[in-house]
Amino acid sequence: MTSPAPSFYHPAPRAQQFCSQCGHALSHEVPPDDNRVRDLCKHCGAVHYQNPRNVVGVVPIWHDQVLLCRRAIEPRYGKWTLPAGFMELGETTEQGAARENQEESGARIRIQSLLTVIDVPSVNQVHLYYLAEVLDPTLDPGPETLEAAFFKLDAIPWQELSFRSVSTTLEHYLQDRPGGRFPTHHYAIDLRFPD
Amino acid sequence: MTSPAPSFYHPAPRAQQFCSQCGHALSHEVPPDDNRVRDLCKHCGAVHYQNPRNVVGVVPIWHDQVLLCRRAIEPRYGKWTLPAGFMELGETTEQGAARENQEESGARIRIQSLLTVIDVPSVNQVHLYYLAEVLDPTLDPGPETLEAAFFKLDAIPWQELSFRSVSTTLEHYLQDRPGGRFPTHHYAIDLRFPD
Repeated sequence: MTSPAPSFYHPAPRAQQFCSQCGHALSHEVPPDDNRVRDLCKHCGAVHYQNPRNVVGVVPIWHDQVLLCRRAIEPRYGKWTLPAGFMELGETTEQGAARENQEESGARIRIQSLLTVIDVPSVNQVHLYYLAEVLDPTLDPGPETLEAAFFKLDAIPWQELSFRSVSTTLEHYLQDRPGGRFPTHHYAIDLRFPD
Repeated sequence: MTSPAPSFYHPAPRAQQFCSQCGHALSHEVPPDDNRVRDLCKHCGAVHYQNPRNVVGVVPIWHDQVLLCRRAIEPRYGKWTLPAGFMELGETTEQGAARENQEESGARIRIQSLLTVIDVPSVNQVHLYYLAEVLDPTLDPGPETLEAAFFKLDAIPWQELSFRSVSTTLEHYLQDRPGGRFPTHHYAIDLRFPD
């Protein structure tokens, strides 16, 4: 087995050259009754659609503190982030968010409500963050986390956060917290135009 | 080119046998530093993750009527549905919902807010529906629609609707309409246990 760099196929190949069903070379053209170029196999007839992926995560709150994890993986190695990752087959967004928290922080939580739905079309992702109550602050971070820690809400390391979806989600939480109501916020982030 | 049945590869192949990068046969095992079985290529190192897909659509309202489309495709051929379909690469959920409406009904709309986020884990999907105002009720349905029509809100063909995400989204709209506020609703549908 050859060994490409760890980030080489992260998160998954997008350009497809061979049919996953029969192994023949793919064509790249607009199929009949379609309106955009697809990866299609003229040997077996398979059309290999590609679609955006969901990233699911949590905002874990312990009294007046939020639980953050320092990334042990690229991109943004060493930055602080909310526990989150790619949604897997067979789970709900909520189950995926809880799983990611378990893998990355190990804290026991109870998920409360959907806080943000964030389109990030430049990377073909939708990010969904759930507000969560930390039930047991014992931490047991997994291999994707350098360290996990609680931060007072007035001491969030804003300059050391990983992604704009993380910082904006935390901003929405802080704005809603005084009122005690946490409706779902929906917006888009265009990474081509950093603010 | 062989001609499989139109539904044979709908919406896209899930079981993968060959590497899309190099064409070699795939292994199905847990990669190092992972915790579930993946389709991986021992020849070139590619890991072919699979993830849930988003279905994006609209609830198009024209005064006291809702715009529905009768499906010209499987599944649920002939049933009435809200304009919706798979989110594509390079677009936001909102842009995808507007595109699907354009393709399936042709009505000119203005999207207003995110009405429902529905997990459907049994088919590895998340459905997102936007409330939309119809600006011009002229209809121009595309090839995936047998006919498009406006229904009075007290004459929705509940027994002839396509999917539970469609009926529950319409129910939420009707419940919220008297109050004039349309917060985002989030829930899961388990198709293994029809209610």
